[in-house]
Amino acid sequence: MKLVRYGEAGHERPGLIDASGVLRDLSGLVPDIAGGALLPDSLARLRALDHAGLPAVDGQPRLGACVGQVGKFVCVGLNYTDHAAEAGMPIPEEPVLFMKPTSCIVGPNDDVEIPRGSTKTDWEIELGIVIGKPAKYVSVEDAYDHVAGYCIVNDVSERAFQLERGGTWDKGKGCDTFGPVGPWLVTTDEIADPHALDMWLEVDGVRRQTGSTRTMIFDVPTIVSYISRFMSLQPGDLITTGTPPGVGLGLKPPAYLTPGQTMHLAISGLGEQRQKTVAAG
Amino acid sequence: MKLVRYGEAGHERPGLIDASGVLRDLSGLVPDIAGGALLPDSLARLRALDHAGLPAVDGQPRLGACVGQVGKFVCVGLNYTDHAAEAGMPIPEEPVLFMKPTSCIVGPNDDVEIPRGSTKTDWEIELGIVIGKPAKYVSVEDAYDHVAGYCIVNDVSERAFQLERGGTWDKGKGCDTFGPVGPWLVTTDEIADPHALDMWLEVDGVRRQTGSTRTMIFDVPTIVSYISRFMSLQPGDLITTGTPPGVGLGLKPPAYLTPGQTMHLAISGLGEQRQKTVAAG
Repeated sequence: MKLVRYGEAGHERPGLIDASGVLRDLSGLVPDIAGGALLPDSLARLRALDHAGLPAVDGQPRLGACVGQVGKFVCVGLNYTDHAAEAGMPIPEEPVLFMKPTSCIVGPNDDVEIPRGSTKTDWEIELGIVIGKPAKYVSVEDAYDHVAGYCIVNDVSERAFQLERGGTWDKGKGCDTFGPVGPWLVTTDEIADPHALDMWLEVDGVRRQTGSTRTMIFDVPTIVSYISRFMSLQPGDLITTGTPPGVGLGLKPPAYLTPGQTMHLAISGLGEQRQKTVAAG
Repeated sequence: MKLVRYGEAGHERPGLIDASGVLRDLSGLVPDIAGGALLPDSLARLRALDHAGLPAVDGQPRLGACVGQVGKFVCVGLNYTDHAAEAGMPIPEEPVLFMKPTSCIVGPNDDVEIPRGSTKTDWEIELGIVIGKPAKYVSVEDAYDHVAGYCIVNDVSERAFQLERGGTWDKGKGCDTFGPVGPWLVTTDEIADPHALDMWLEVDGVRRQTGSTRTMIFDVPTIVSYISRFMSLQPGDLITTGTPPGVGLGLKPPAYLTPGQTMHLAISGLGEQRQKTVAAG
């Protein structure tokens, strides 16, 4: 299934994209694509519905982030060998973790703000994991049982805030709009292997990132198991898994975003995002 | 006002402690001590009530964290000169930020879990700031207008996870139960100066931390203003502001928590916390 949240920001309704690509409404069946609605039994109920019989949604409404009420947004850094190299960082021996505040989450095609004082706002296409079952001290073998599905995340990052202002990376990862998520939450039954997904990102039509999840250092079950040793995970929690090479920081010379540009990014099977950059108000 | 949340974990009800120290119920007046209930108008309405006329709560119910549905839990590190010295870290030139996941939040007197594999679980008494009005690019001069009140936070930390496992500090700050918050959310009208509060923490009756918020490097309005440049803040967000000297990491030799110990901590005007340590299940 391809689950979505559509409508105005802050007032999104649950929906799904059916096999014909039609957006259909799930209001009344689940309160939101969030929390308990992502538990295995709930997803099984939604999967068993006659999707063609659900109300079709007219027009082309805005899409919100494909998961709502995210409890936490955990990030794995330097998880692609080539990206660690371009960032001038050693290959990590165990997953590098940091966090984005949930207040940075926006829809897949919403504007991305260049923060006040920013000189180094950068892009990062990533595979997102949406948790579907509580996880604490989960083994690698059992980790997939705790995953509801996958989505695209643009882990927008301000490199000067992240690396040159003291303290942890979190300072450059959480500005408002730095977390476009979606368009779809694609449930695990549609993704045969999350480690065989092509991904790319363009800025103003220029290809910047071309990669595949097959070059991830730590795979999906390893990441879920590992994080569950340091914090418990709840349904609707979001994990983003690191970016392949081609970020602005890694260009020679480095190049960063300015207002008025367009990012366009995609992961096979997970859809596309397109954001315009604007100056923060 | 001293606002509280009381009852079983996950089912807390809103309440307040009146001028005589009696716990009174606020159910029906606000849905929770959280989010919109912390806006200035809402707090003014609660303040204007006849508190002695509210229903008294029988018995001694458990207290939950004094703020519910926390959107994010932002932390300032190394914010006391002497603590930076004992941790072997330089005095920061600007606030050091990191994050705790909201899943670590517990009541002020709930058990604290020693995580599996932990050898260095440590204590940190801190002044918590509860946001009461949205804040984005707020000036230092206006910052107090965005604060609903204050509370005690025990920023429990696993030093090996934090400092020896790669990546950011977040890895050692967010284990379940690592965020006791409360007992009271004391609104700003009762705290004449948040920079003149004595604080102490004892482990098994042995005094470990003795300090005062007057030795904070970055003060409350500076912290709120600073964070609002890197992420917007919403009502019910929680900021913890760093710890004075005396943590286990700073003892010679270092000493850490094991199951079966008791932490007892207090900040003047904000009440006391008391946690037992237990092994994570």
